[in-house]
Amino acid sequence: MSGESPLRELLRDLPGPDEEARAAVAARASQVLRPAGALARLDEVAAWLAAWQRTERPAVSSPHAVVFAADHGVAVAGVSAYPSAVTAAMLDALEKGAATATAMARALGVTLEVLDVGVGRPTADLRDTPAMDERRFDEAVAAGVTSVDRAADAGADLLVFGEMGIGNTTAAAAVAACLFGGPIEGWVGRGTGLDDDGVARKAAAVEACVERLLSAGVTDPLEVLRHAGGAELAAMAGACIQARRRSVPVVLDGYVVTAAVAPLAARVPGALDHVVAGHRSAERGHGMLLERLGLDPLLTLDLRLGEGSGALLAVPLVRLAAVSVVEVATFQEWGLA
Amino acid sequence: MSGESPLRELLRDLPGPDEEARAAVAARASQVLRPAGALARLDEVAAWLAAWQRTERPAVSSPHAVVFAADHGVAVAGVSAYPSAVTAAMLDALEKGAATATAMARALGVTLEVLDVGVGRPTADLRDTPAMDERRFDEAVAAGVTSVDRAADAGADLLVFGEMGIGNTTAAAAVAACLFGGPIEGWVGRGTGLDDDGVARKAAAVEACVERLLSAGVTDPLEVLRHAGGAELAAMAGACIQARRRSVPVVLDGYVVTAAVAPLAARVPGALDHVVAGHRSAERGHGMLLERLGLDPLLTLDLRLGEGSGALLAVPLVRLAAVSVVEVATFQEWGLA
Repeated sequence: MSGESPLRELLRDLPGPDEEARAAVAARASQVLRPAGALARLDEVAAWLAAWQRTERPAVSSPHAVVFAADHGVAVAGVSAYPSAVTAAMLDALEKGAATATAMARALGVTLEVLDVGVGRPTADLRDTPAMDERRFDEAVAAGVTSVDRAADAGADLLVFGEMGIGNTTAAAAVAACLFGGPIEGWVGRGTGLDDDGVARKAAAVEACVERLLSAGVTDPLEVLRHAGGAELAAMAGACIQARRRSVPVVLDGYVVTAAVAPLAARVPGALDHVVAGHRSAERGHGMLLERLGLDPLLTLDLRLGEGSGALLAVPLVRLAAVSVVEVATFQEWGLA
Repeated sequence: MSGESPLRELLRDLPGPDEEARAAVAARASQVLRPAGALARLDEVAAWLAAWQRTERPAVSSPHAVVFAADHGVAVAGVSAYPSAVTAAMLDALEKGAATATAMARALGVTLEVLDVGVGRPTADLRDTPAMDERRFDEAVAAGVTSVDRAADAGADLLVFGEMGIGNTTAAAAVAACLFGGPIEGWVGRGTGLDDDGVARKAAAVEACVERLLSAGVTDPLEVLRHAGGAELAAMAGACIQARRRSVPVVLDGYVVTAAVAPLAARVPGALDHVVAGHRSAERGHGMLLERLGLDPLLTLDLRLGEGSGALLAVPLVRLAAVSVVEVATFQEWGLA
């Protein structure tokens, strides 16, 4: 046992894409019965899916969503429009199929799992202390890895990551601010509907976290995630890398999900090549973060819900991108070439 | 018999929206288990669907696509990257399920009909003469009306309009330029992939049509459609109005579909209130046209295919907008209010 963190180990020797599958699908996309390039970005999505599913016949037949949920110590700082108790209530609604994401998933034929990594068991207050000690962090990462293993074993061919956790856009902003710097205000938004005073409290909390990490000399991206993130963010980071290892591409939801996986790319360039951004949310900071990561969102609908809703909305686009290459005849097959 | 054109008659006494259904769905959207406004535009789409389906439980359970196809006399002017024979070949591919739109429709559970209103029977050359005489125009309008009646009788609750017709972006540009004026170049794009010389020929064709209508004093929007449009455009105009009469909302595809229905709004303000723009295409002019019509597209993916592909991609968004209101519990139902 090296004693090294599991996330650090997971990031070693990451599998690359299947370039032959990518090239085969890109070639077919240029030969099917439509003007070359007529589907623009969608043809690229089909080729991307092929590269990471490692097949010349990419498909979205068994999409699976995981909604990662946890509570946050920083919520006591008045950084959310809702009290922490709402996390548990929404967890219940998600588990019983009464929430927005579950309604969307049902309509789409996406299976949905809620992964509780700390509801009612808040992380520490990131203003004053690391949100998680190493044990808690590793436990959350492992839970994320296990959830992806379960999904992959069950045949999932596309993963959707969503989240639920009162206070977690503060954690997201703290992670982003620590990783990428720049004015705090740029990273801090209204979350679920915060007023101006709330936004000021949130900015102060993020500022305190940034200063704490500066003083402590914390710069390693994975350490930033442990210090400034939250349990569901750590779980998503683990899940994201395990998805890469299991050849299941990932659709990201909004600001919190993107911030959760950003440290992976900050530590290992290309570590997010197997993910696509489902949408760009209304949350200030999400657009900036996507740009920093070089991720071009499929949808821009000004959503600010979370739960994986924006990523779920993008699932049909990924699915249709694939069928538009795999299930369309080529000019040659159609006797026109 | 008044001898009046069927399209003109259809535009009389248009049914308005069901404002009670709209208000009921908007109210529920503000009460379901998520921060008010978190789904932004999608909540508006749900309320819009309710208003035009005339129900407090809007749904997209039986979406139906119609791909309107025809040939164009103006194609002889070298305004397309493809010869007119391609219209028939693509009609065949669409009918046999080998085209992009049919692959998408299958994956989405959207039924798809191809409506041939003139493949191999081109309209007249819009540079020199009205594209359609009154008889041909009325015949195309009636075909569109009948196709919507068939779909509505079969229970369609959302209609998708697409098109196929070599030369028809020239007709679209001519209709738009005649209706809204401005520099011809703004309305003329590359279509399926025209080179610079082709774009110049296309602009010249549109210019000739605009001048002809100016000389002839043709300003009535429905007459513009007859003079500058094409058979599939006339059919879509008829279909669009009949969809309103049958309480089936419509998702528009790209430039040609939007240009086909634009004369309706130019003649009767509000005549397109029951339609939503599925996407904004890469075709120069489509964005301008959507703006003129006050239509805000759901997707912006730089598509330039036609066949209804962009509208099909938007169908899941409309469907999920509805389930996200109808199938999500309210705070009260969940004991949280």
